[in-house]
Amino acid sequence: MMRIIVAPDSYKGSMSSAEACAAIESGVKDYDPSYHIESIPIADGGEGTVEALVTILEGEIILEKVFDPLGREVTAEYGWINETKTAIVETAAASGLPRLKEEELKPSAASTYGTGQLIQAALERGAKRIILGLGGSATVDAGTGCFQALGVKFLNDEGKELEMNGKALQHVTKIETDTISELSNQVEWIIASDVTNPLLGPEGAISVFGPQKGVSAAHLTEFESGMERYASVVEQHTEKVVRNYEGSGAAGGFGFTLFSLLENLKVESGFELIAKQGELEKLISDADLVITGEGKIDTQTLYGKGPIGIARLARKARVPCIAFTGKSEGDMRRAKDEGLLSVLPIVDEPMTLKEAMESGPELLRKASRRCMEIYHLKQGKGEIHK
Amino acid sequence: MMRIIVAPDSYKGSMSSAEACAAIESGVKDYDPSYHIESIPIADGGEGTVEALVTILEGEIILEKVFDPLGREVTAEYGWINETKTAIVETAAASGLPRLKEEELKPSAASTYGTGQLIQAALERGAKRIILGLGGSATVDAGTGCFQALGVKFLNDEGKELEMNGKALQHVTKIETDTISELSNQVEWIIASDVTNPLLGPEGAISVFGPQKGVSAAHLTEFESGMERYASVVEQHTEKVVRNYEGSGAAGGFGFTLFSLLENLKVESGFELIAKQGELEKLISDADLVITGEGKIDTQTLYGKGPIGIARLARKARVPCIAFTGKSEGDMRRAKDEGLLSVLPIVDEPMTLKEAMESGPELLRKASRRCMEIYHLKQGKGEIHK
Repeated sequence: MMRIIVAPDSYKGSMSSAEACAAIESGVKDYDPSYHIESIPIADGGEGTVEALVTILEGEIILEKVFDPLGREVTAEYGWINETKTAIVETAAASGLPRLKEEELKPSAASTYGTGQLIQAALERGAKRIILGLGGSATVDAGTGCFQALGVKFLNDEGKELEMNGKALQHVTKIETDTISELSNQVEWIIASDVTNPLLGPEGAISVFGPQKGVSAAHLTEFESGMERYASVVEQHTEKVVRNYEGSGAAGGFGFTLFSLLENLKVESGFELIAKQGELEKLISDADLVITGEGKIDTQTLYGKGPIGIARLARKARVPCIAFTGKSEGDMRRAKDEGLLSVLPIVDEPMTLKEAMESGPELLRKASRRCMEIYHLKQGKGEIHK
Repeated sequence: MMRIIVAPDSYKGSMSSAEACAAIESGVKDYDPSYHIESIPIADGGEGTVEALVTILEGEIILEKVFDPLGREVTAEYGWINETKTAIVETAAASGLPRLKEEELKPSAASTYGTGQLIQAALERGAKRIILGLGGSATVDAGTGCFQALGVKFLNDEGKELEMNGKALQHVTKIETDTISELSNQVEWIIASDVTNPLLGPEGAISVFGPQKGVSAAHLTEFESGMERYASVVEQHTEKVVRNYEGSGAAGGFGFTLFSLLENLKVESGFELIAKQGELEKLISDADLVITGEGKIDTQTLYGKGPIGIARLARKARVPCIAFTGKSEGDMRRAKDEGLLSVLPIVDEPMTLKEAMESGPELLRKASRRCMEIYHLKQGKGEIHK
């Protein structure tokens, strides 16, 4: 019996990684329902992290009414593993880009307050461990909104408490951290992120990720200097300099404030956290075939953590690994060196990008079935008509 | 060493079958240059028949200046096999739809005269056998233009010779066949066609194929009755009734006049002729894999002769067979019963039909390489990094 590990990332705008798992699984079962398939949705700390970890750890989804990046009440989710009292929160859930339409992007006003509300709710539920996935936020508030929701006070030069967002950073002259929710200091924090950017400079939060969150070219230096002033205030307060730590620039500077204000904190690669929790290495070494994928696979992917992380585990275990994608771009030869033996498109006839995104699950299902058909061509001449 | 037979039909509007062979071959060689590949372009008697047979029989292409369907001088080709003095002529070459823009379609004026000129040229070169591929003509002149070029006289009720085309058929009251080019009676004729329609009626040349040659709905009955009158005149002359023969409706009634006026004539399925000449059955039975294809594969294809003919030969030999296509439509499950184990799309990302057609050879090459990658996934875990 054939054993297949299905471990795709999300196909952004079309399918979550869990949906992609279901589509691939269903295509394989179309070909032969008897195959043994293990599905592990993967993510990098950003959108999909909660879904991936809740699936792997067989936890549950908790819904909370919190604020979106612009302070509108929305329902957002976090993951809960009751056995270990672990909460999984991703910044993308309450404070993420998908919460805003393109024309609503407003980095000066956007806040991670809602993420703090989710964490506070998890703490009140009795969380002993918080896994916080960074990535995909619509904010450049350095996570101050989140910490405000947890009780930290950010004050201006008149000693007045500020309402925190991207613009308010420049007005912070003092912070009060002894007001932080007591619970938050009693838990173990795991920051899941595959972003390694520092807080400031050309590789920092504003320069690299600002534009996608709505920072216009004209305002880049203004946001950058506000962030820098904020960093100095915090570093003076904590007497720790973390602005150049790997990942302090993640999620609009969220990493910086986490590293500055939390004690009991560990940083892990989002992908590796999921791989470890899912015991992916062991699962893969027992498999005959590994199937991964992502909406778009390009040379960037080859340096990333999702499908290439999976391919590397497969290469290590000497198990063949392939990926399905909506679009591949650039030279894929290096993919082979990383263990990705084939990158297979899912589009099956001329169609627009919109049509392809809308029918993603069906295209992926059919592509998986075709792949099984070819994979089995060699089962011997005498057996071709099962 | 792996042995692959590549035998696609044409991808109409994008690649001839010979070009498709080259693209598939190049994709397979991209994967492993050591494979043994035999390419057999296939065709059904229509466009591509000359190219396919000349490739298989290692003949040459002869160019002639002849008339297109509207009497304009063009250069058209026929195939020549010197060893057996065999000429291969297809009606599509001089008198085919590709000769006219859509707005030039004019069935009343269109004539197969140019096809007759090609045949006459081949006869003068010393042909002992004429293989005439029927199909894809822009004409409904019942092949009278062709026979006029070969010397047959079509007369009206005043005894005047008519210039033959779709409209002139209704004015024919007498034909003179003793004026036919002497050479044409001394050769062996093989009519290659996969069309089985009779001359008249709802399944006939006008009803089924008239519209694609430009016969408007309003003129269908007029052309039909002209054709019927012509058929009666010919049948009276020959004292043979062939209007209901299978294929007498091929190429706008061309079959009817061929069956009526030629003695030394054999009809073969275009596909089978090519398969036989190429010794396809033997080649396939020695192969590990057969690759076929066509621009579009739909339920119609499953009843046709091209890729399904190949698949049936493969099924008989118990060799796996797959097809590449630009677009598949309808339920492909029956394809498996016919021996076509997988129908693989060549489009590899969202794109328009026009883009797909323009980059057909490149898409087909890449699809073939991907297919080889999957086909070889099972070569054993230890060998995945060649």
